[in-house]
Amino acid sequence: MEGIVLELPFILDSFLMVFAGILVMIMACGFAMLESGLTRSKNTATIMTKNVLIFSIASVAYYIVGYNIMYGDGNAFMGSGAFLSGIEYDSHSVYADFFFQMVFVATAASVISGTVAERIKLWPFLIFVLILTAIIYPIQGHWTWGESLEFLEGFSDYAGSTIVHSVGGWAALAGVLLLGARKGKYEGGKIRAIPGSNIPLATLGTFLLWFGWFGFNGGSALAMHSAELADEIGLVVASTNTAAATGAIVAAILTRIIYQKVDTTMVLNGALGGLVGITAGPDVAPWAAIIIGTVSAILVVIAVPAFDKVRIDDPVGALSVHLVCGIWGTLAVAIFNAEVTLIDQLKGIILIGGFVFIASFIVWMILKVTMGIRVDEEVEVEGLDMHECGLEAYPEFGKGSQKIL
Amino acid sequence: MEGIVLELPFILDSFLMVFAGILVMIMACGFAMLESGLTRSKNTATIMTKNVLIFSIASVAYYIVGYNIMYGDGNAFMGSGAFLSGIEYDSHSVYADFFFQMVFVATAASVISGTVAERIKLWPFLIFVLILTAIIYPIQGHWTWGESLEFLEGFSDYAGSTIVHSVGGWAALAGVLLLGARKGKYEGGKIRAIPGSNIPLATLGTFLLWFGWFGFNGGSALAMHSAELADEIGLVVASTNTAAATGAIVAAILTRIIYQKVDTTMVLNGALGGLVGITAGPDVAPWAAIIIGTVSAILVVIAVPAFDKVRIDDPVGALSVHLVCGIWGTLAVAIFNAEVTLIDQLKGIILIGGFVFIASFIVWMILKVTMGIRVDEEVEVEGLDMHECGLEAYPEFGKGSQKIL
Amino acid sequence: MEGIVLELPFILDSFLMVFAGILVMIMACGFAMLESGLTRSKNTATIMTKNVLIFSIASVAYYIVGYNIMYGDGNAFMGSGAFLSGIEYDSHSVYADFFFQMVFVATAASVISGTVAERIKLWPFLIFVLILTAIIYPIQGHWTWGESLEFLEGFSDYAGSTIVHSVGGWAALAGVLLLGARKGKYEGGKIRAIPGSNIPLATLGTFLLWFGWFGFNGGSALAMHSAELADEIGLVVASTNTAAATGAIVAAILTRIIYQKVDTTMVLNGALGGLVGITAGPDVAPWAAIIIGTVSAILVVIAVPAFDKVRIDDPVGALSVHLVCGIWGTLAVAIFNAEVTLIDQLKGIILIGGFVFIASFIVWMILKVTMGIRVDEEVEVEGLDMHECGLEAYPEFGKGSQKIL
Repeated sequence: MEGIVLELPFILDSFLMVFAGILVMIMACGFAMLESGLTRSKNTATIMTKNVLIFSIASVAYYIVGYNIMYGDGNAFMGSGAFLSGIEYDSHSVYADFFFQMVFVATAASVISGTVAERIKLWPFLIFVLILTAIIYPIQGHWTWGESLEFLEGFSDYAGSTIVHSVGGWAALAGVLLLGARKGKYEGGKIRAIPGSNIPLATLGTFLLWFGWFGFNGGSALAMHSAELADEIGLVVASTNTAAATGAIVAAILTRIIYQKVDTTMVLNGALGGLVGITAGPDVAPWAAIIIGTVSAILVVIAVPAFDKVRIDDPVGALSVHLVCGIWGTLAVAIFNAEVTLIDQLKGIILIGGFVFIASFIVWMILKVTMGIRVDEEVEVEGLDMHECGLEAYPEFGKGSQKIL
Repeated sequence: MEGIVLELPFILDSFLMVFAGILVMIMACGFAMLESGLTRSKNTATIMTKNVLIFSIASVAYYIVGYNIMYGDGNAFMGSGAFLSGIEYDSHSVYADFFFQMVFVATAASVISGTVAERIKLWPFLIFVLILTAIIYPIQGHWTWGESLEFLEGFSDYAGSTIVHSVGGWAALAGVLLLGARKGKYEGGKIRAIPGSNIPLATLGTFLLWFGWFGFNGGSALAMHSAELADEIGLVVASTNTAAATGAIVAAILTRIIYQKVDTTMVLNGALGGLVGITAGPDVAPWAAIIIGTVSAILVVIAVPAFDKVRIDDPVGALSVHLVCGIWGTLAVAIFNAEVTLIDQLKGIILIGGFVFIASFIVWMILKVTMGIRVDEEVEVEGLDMHECGLEAYPEFGKGSQKIL
Repeated sequence: MEGIVLELPFILDSFLMVFAGILVMIMACGFAMLESGLTRSKNTATIMTKNVLIFSIASVAYYIVGYNIMYGDGNAFMGSGAFLSGIEYDSHSVYADFFFQMVFVATAASVISGTVAERIKLWPFLIFVLILTAIIYPIQGHWTWGESLEFLEGFSDYAGSTIVHSVGGWAALAGVLLLGARKGKYEGGKIRAIPGSNIPLATLGTFLLWFGWFGFNGGSALAMHSAELADEIGLVVASTNTAAATGAIVAAILTRIIYQKVDTTMVLNGALGGLVGITAGPDVAPWAAIIIGTVSAILVVIAVPAFDKVRIDDPVGALSVHLVCGIWGTLAVAIFNAEVTLIDQLKGIILIGGFVFIASFIVWMILKVTMGIRVDEEVEVEGLDMHECGLEAYPEFGKGSQKIL
């Protein structure tokens, strides 16, 4: 019977990773539902296909390449093939660890999808995802969660406001700058609202993301073999939830005040902004989560129209949610955690952001020059679904306004 | 290594609450999908917004106020600010406990939403939710799950048939009595069926509620640090499932007999009725769950048209499911548990029901007199979405019959 | 404190079954969403009703009859009423065990639903489900997971590629042979594509199945009371995911090459094929899962049009996914596991397949002769929903092409 006591930390910590990783996996579904809900039905099947393949490519690419770059004794720049060299960990299952880390990579890739939706070509996008999940993400992951760079030693990012969400955001920003806005979005100097086709899907997606986020942040304790750790997980889950809830409430109140209506999509993005904001430091008391969530929602409500002002067309608001709130959340750690300094947080934000933005920009540029990244105007007008997938998402439902540009 | 053995109950029990709480959280999504599936598409975006905000308000209000009223040494009437005074528990994480209790409050609030759907004003409704989750629910929770009232000492409600579901039901009943029926529902002395706009959403919602209910009832063991407790959780999950399954089957057979068709929405409500019915005492053998589920489904099939007869317009059948089956489930404990008496169960049903109904009625009345709780007739006819949220839920889909009153 | 150490295996293993069983339960929802997404909206409400009732009937029938046939000392052919005779297990909760086994039975039954969709009568179908889950499935389950037949001693099927998925597939094949194709599907010697009405629902269903499959395969370790077991669960989850991901990618590439478009539904079925394929032996390294997933996707891409060629009309591709990949996955164990022989695997495939196909064929035949299993042509053309359930799934959405034969 002694055996089980000795092995208990291994059992509990491995199970935590499996459990949390499964929760995070459903976020891939959440992203798919959210993106298709906030865009037009003529592109829905392509969006679904894209999202299934994002998660799939991340799964395989991170196994074959990414995990090996991110972990294992290597040099400052990258790891040494941790996985393929057959390492095992004394403290927990290596495959549970791999699975848990993999779903984070997939999350970063999913963030990009919404920003470039409704005009990106499917295959170049998937190639970008391949490179991001195999190489770009794991390099910066090696600097932080792998073998910490000396430069980033003080940098603190509990579950990845910067390392996951902003990384997705920077890659999306690089892409959208080269891709341009959807046809008609800024025609005639005006900003045209392009309504999402399915609000229940968007809401379902938000709830699934929220649900999965308990694994994202809760699992990032990485262990639960002591009362202290179990306590921490309880705190993280409670505060993660509080930040999301506050984000939704604040977005509702703000849009009610500004626009006289409660903007449903802004409420959803407010909740998501709160989630991204809390992710860098969810091990704070719920009252701090309320502050973090409040600022996140304010940022989202400001950023969404601000991106439109500078003609950056982000159909789902992913830049506002994941990039802007990701930066905010990372900075907020310096406010609520006495051991963390603002300068250390800025170092991480800038180094990681700079690296990912530049690397992504280069990759997007190569793809643009070689394969092209944007569908033909005709395809965009008619919808990507018939051209990319050969089917319609809702063939039997009305098409009154479906052909909206 | 001794440490981990000593800390193991803390670890396991905290994890159970986190795990179960996460499952219950997705019930908020289930309620949103169910309600929007069973109502008209012109109100769908508002329903989505409402449901996200219900869960959000419950999260914040129960943290700042509710939990403090419900727990901590106080007097018979309410607690003494357990949470804000910084208490910790020896046996498990206080935040895991808070999170687990919070999702129950949110559930009670979600119950109300469906009954008042399609004509309630958004903001007065949200204010009601705030008061319910901050004050009304926690007071009666203090009487039972907090510091038990002497009067209710024999009252037994394992996971909340009365304390959660009927509480939502009583609050909904008070609201609907002051709110009135949807326009056209009982026009010309006839009962008009107003079909739900999206049966897949309603089904999805039911499945998510069923799924989350395993956390609701299974987690209510509150601990799993012994074989006996683990056994109990297994039993609770199996019997919870059996009651739901039986409810669906019996509703299918009954509607087939009575109406010659299997009424899909009644099958869904039959399953949910079974779940509510088993909640007060899920630690019974599955054969008892079959009986409880059978009676629950019979009650639902009778109650839905009965409420219509007395002109109480409940678009989703929440009163039949949560109030009627909540009462039945609470009484059923006295049948299947020899230690519990019918009189003790009645005491709880009446005291809690009376308190919640009266308190809710007063709050609804104040809201009605001050802000008004019902949208203008014009808004109701056109749909709440454009007026409350400024968008349509399905802007691209056909509107043939969307403008049904 | 010694007590908890002694009881720990019981606690951990029971919890694993509860946890995994809950995950598998949501697969019932996944099947419902997938099936309704890939079929026409005029039959959607019936499909929803059917799927809720499949899970419900499996829950009750397996409790009252099935589990008793499958487990307990009996003879080679069937068990001896394990459950009703009040057995308990020393190693884990009997009800957790029952619940975990029950969701597998429900999965097998759900497989059938898609193949016979859009023309099967509701009640005869439900009677078939009753017989399958009460008797047919448990008998072959007794031969393998119950009290192993001597003949099948070498047969290895970790989580049920054959025992669950192919069983569903064989029963479906027997049914569809007696039922015939949907009206219009093969009219005039041509194969007519009948597009699915809701691709987001189908995608949601696939993600939910994928999510639930982590419980399906991960839980089939049946225990986690040692580091070795925890390690195995980590591996199983990682490889299960890898097979699914590979399946989706390979199906995308293949359909791009063959049809110049990425067929969304084939990508979904590719992922599902990968999941079925890995299920017989998920305790392999992810590189093996890549091979298994690749072959699975190739088989799905070949099998879907092949079934059409032989005029077997399977609206959702369930035979290709669950039967064909189930056989492949079972054979693959012999490739990747040195202790398993091809001949032993073939023995299991043939014995179980033969038994289930013949038993199912007889039951379907009796149902056909007595009640009839196919709806009237008029009902099929108009859609089953109004006739079986008395309502429409999407009453407010356009009907442009809804009346497609």
